[in-house]
Amino acid sequence: MSNTMTELRAAYGEIADLRAAMGLLEWDQQTHMPKEGFATRGRVVATLAQIAHERYLSPRFDELVAAAEAEAPPGDDAITLDLLRWERDRERRIPATLVEENSLAVTASYQAWEEARKTKDFAQFAPHLEKVVALRRRFADHYGYDAHPWDALVPGFERGMTAALIKPVFDKVQPRVTALLKAIQSKGPAHDLSFLDQRWDPDAQWAFGMRVLADLGFDLARGRQDRSTHPFTMGMAPTDVRLTTRLKAESLFSALMATAHEGGHGLYEQGFRPEDARTPLGHAPSSAVHESQARLYEYRVAACLPFWRHYAPVLREHFPGQLDNVSAEQLYAAINEVSASFIRVDADEVTYPLHIILRFELELELIAGTLAVRDLPEAWNAKMRAYLGITPPDPVLGCMQDVHWAEALFGYFPSYSLGTMFGAMFMEKMEADHPSLWTDMEAGDFRPVLGWLRRNVHTVGSRMKPLELVRAATGREFTPEPFLHYLEAKYTELYRLGG
Amino acid sequence: MSNTMTELRAAYGEIADLRAAMGLLEWDQQTHMPKEGFATRGRVVATLAQIAHERYLSPRFDELVAAAEAEAPPGDDAITLDLLRWERDRERRIPATLVEENSLAVTASYQAWEEARKTKDFAQFAPHLEKVVALRRRFADHYGYDAHPWDALVPGFERGMTAALIKPVFDKVQPRVTALLKAIQSKGPAHDLSFLDQRWDPDAQWAFGMRVLADLGFDLARGRQDRSTHPFTMGMAPTDVRLTTRLKAESLFSALMATAHEGGHGLYEQGFRPEDARTPLGHAPSSAVHESQARLYEYRVAACLPFWRHYAPVLREHFPGQLDNVSAEQLYAAINEVSASFIRVDADEVTYPLHIILRFELELELIAGTLAVRDLPEAWNAKMRAYLGITPPDPVLGCMQDVHWAEALFGYFPSYSLGTMFGAMFMEKMEADHPSLWTDMEAGDFRPVLGWLRRNVHTVGSRMKPLELVRAATGREFTPEPFLHYLEAKYTELYRLGG
Repeated sequence: MSNTMTELRAAYGEIADLRAAMGLLEWDQQTHMPKEGFATRGRVVATLAQIAHERYLSPRFDELVAAAEAEAPPGDDAITLDLLRWERDRERRIPATLVEENSLAVTASYQAWEEARKTKDFAQFAPHLEKVVALRRRFADHYGYDAHPWDALVPGFERGMTAALIKPVFDKVQPRVTALLKAIQSKGPAHDLSFLDQRWDPDAQWAFGMRVLADLGFDLARGRQDRSTHPFTMGMAPTDVRLTTRLKAESLFSALMATAHEGGHGLYEQGFRPEDARTPLGHAPSSAVHESQARLYEYRVAACLPFWRHYAPVLREHFPGQLDNVSAEQLYAAINEVSASFIRVDADEVTYPLHIILRFELELELIAGTLAVRDLPEAWNAKMRAYLGITPPDPVLGCMQDVHWAEALFGYFPSYSLGTMFGAMFMEKMEADHPSLWTDMEAGDFRPVLGWLRRNVHTVGSRMKPLELVRAATGREFTPEPFLHYLEAKYTELYRLGG
Repeated sequence: MSNTMTELRAAYGEIADLRAAMGLLEWDQQTHMPKEGFATRGRVVATLAQIAHERYLSPRFDELVAAAEAEAPPGDDAITLDLLRWERDRERRIPATLVEENSLAVTASYQAWEEARKTKDFAQFAPHLEKVVALRRRFADHYGYDAHPWDALVPGFERGMTAALIKPVFDKVQPRVTALLKAIQSKGPAHDLSFLDQRWDPDAQWAFGMRVLADLGFDLARGRQDRSTHPFTMGMAPTDVRLTTRLKAESLFSALMATAHEGGHGLYEQGFRPEDARTPLGHAPSSAVHESQARLYEYRVAACLPFWRHYAPVLREHFPGQLDNVSAEQLYAAINEVSASFIRVDADEVTYPLHIILRFELELELIAGTLAVRDLPEAWNAKMRAYLGITPPDPVLGCMQDVHWAEALFGYFPSYSLGTMFGAMFMEKMEADHPSLWTDMEAGDFRPVLGWLRRNVHTVGSRMKPLELVRAATGREFTPEPFLHYLEAKYTELYRLGG
């Protein structure tokens, strides 16, 4: 490595350290911070964000980038240079004052969101969301865009992605998923799931989730799990990765699904190469790739029949007397029960894409200004009725359910479904590479899954762009077909739709 | 406030924010961080320390200080200017590379200390301590000093203090404390304390400690308590103050004493004026003043007879069947039991100053280089024999018991005893101002204590220097006499030494 690249990496490393500190401040804010800590926490995060921004745009950083460009280094250095230059150029478009203003607004908005949820009062949250949306539009204006201001925001999560690229994919997926959902609804349940209607001790749920997390390969010497209102993952380094889950006594699977989902994120964060730490390489190439890992562990692993053939006896031990006559097949049917429901994170695999498409469409309108924030609850409910046939009784079950918009994460939602589709392609290839994949899982051995992902996804880091990574890992161009094929096959069998 | 002062406060505020983030990183490191998180944590803290250091020494900061000096502002602005100029001038003497080197060395040293304690192996820790001591000497050389290099380090905790000023105070205290200890040892216990020899459920200890903490006035919406190896307090802001305690099943009082001690620190941190946040005014004027609050709550509150007259029934409820025949007087005698023991933080009120004097003397020698680190265990044990008549069987019970030296806190230890002496002066005045003080406490009302401290100590912040604050609060010049008088009177009665 040249001296220039060494210095450039050191300069970038300081920015990475500031971001790691911000990660911890945000993790703490959602897990351990005393209630009134909000007053000053936003200020601290804003200062760190501002310093990171300044460092990116400092003359010294520019000099190093220019010197590195002149040297035109090969291999990883070339990718590193491309990534940090792209990030810098994007950062450069935003004035430091706007960064600070945004950071303070987001902290206040998060707090307002948490408070407003207690009283189910959208009006309390609305002024904060208006401010966040207005700030997003100002960001979009600074970034620049051709077709839609939303296109200016999405590259923060999916570089090179636009509304015009996503829409045809979603337009292909939606009618087939809608057809599947209608078939399921007209057929009705094929299994007796009345056992679900019990109280599930949160401590036992926690213990079972921790057991599964360790079995999946999450290293608890390099990470931990906590509780928070909305589950999330924060990776400070591959040696320090934090997940959260939530525990609901009325739901047998909610905590496990959150643990498996965040566990997928966490396994990814633990799987970056140690030597990529503090460089642009030690990250996912996009949010969709990150979500591919989360959705894969949530559904393809934790909601498959071999998983439940292995864990049914373990779950019975955790809830003595509550599951004695419940088979692995019933647990599998229960965790995959399809029903139109209000909450995205609790949504089943079939209705989930509809929740995403709804948010994608509303986001486009909010950012374009064709939908006013005050009209959001009504627009939300109208789409819920149209796509899922149900009307949320209050905003906590409607447009205030997700933390994303409160945290200014506009442009993120499509990543979940794109990620699910990437995951379906990974699974197809993984099955081909490991014919014993499902029998291994049934024996409680999840190493083939993690091994395949470590080799083909995790250790790649940001060395490839998302669609390149999908192509390299699977040998195919990106397509939603494997996802649709998997979904239709699985639920046709589960709901006996074929007959 | 002038524009100059507004800008200067904003510039200082950013440094305060970086320090707040470092506070959280360090709190997390000792409470929640996964084991292997150490690898990168030191790097993050070092980067933040370096940025804070750079900001202090930036030309912009210098310009603002010079402009403010020219304006010669009155009142709080004058004190703010004096404090931050003094801090800056001290910071300026240390090269940025040394700050970074020190920060990395301290993180490694803390880790080595924790690891070496597991195997009780001083040799494993020694190279790290040598590095820390060598770095302390380099810091002392940069700061400059007249009589002793230690004098260059102590102003970080006690501005204006020197070894030559402390030694006569300790020389006055030590013979009278030694005489008291010998009298106690020759007389023997006056109460049956055999009830202490039971197992005390850590969860019940935790619950009792949380109850006391709330009763003392610690606001749990603006703070929290966690567990750590070594109890400490971290205040990010008056709205976010974190204590830790430790739970030992074999000790009824260890957790409570830690909670009361850290609670004293925490009440102080919660008591700074909100408008002093992010300024040099919103801090204790010295470590001794901070320790005065901790030691006051630990001994003058949580180890007085009225406290136990109130809490004896509460404690009985927390340990059903274990304390049925134990009186408030026995609990009072038990928590104040005097015995020469190895661990400072578990030491009683009488032997405690001897632990401090031992450390003070060893520190002077380590920093002067007249004692080599490899000879520390032997020197420690020799002094333990001379002052307390006992020899630690291993370094965890000896020179590796405290985190301070591992964290480069040389110059801190005297603060505990100076603080105890300040606290004795505060209590003398508080008793005079509130004749019903002890009957209020016996009724479980601790508001008179907190109210007096809020008015006379907490809200003062750094507006006065330590000895000025003591004078303003008590109307007397600093003297160890009230401490010695209190100690002799209390233990003469407890051990019936009079007869």
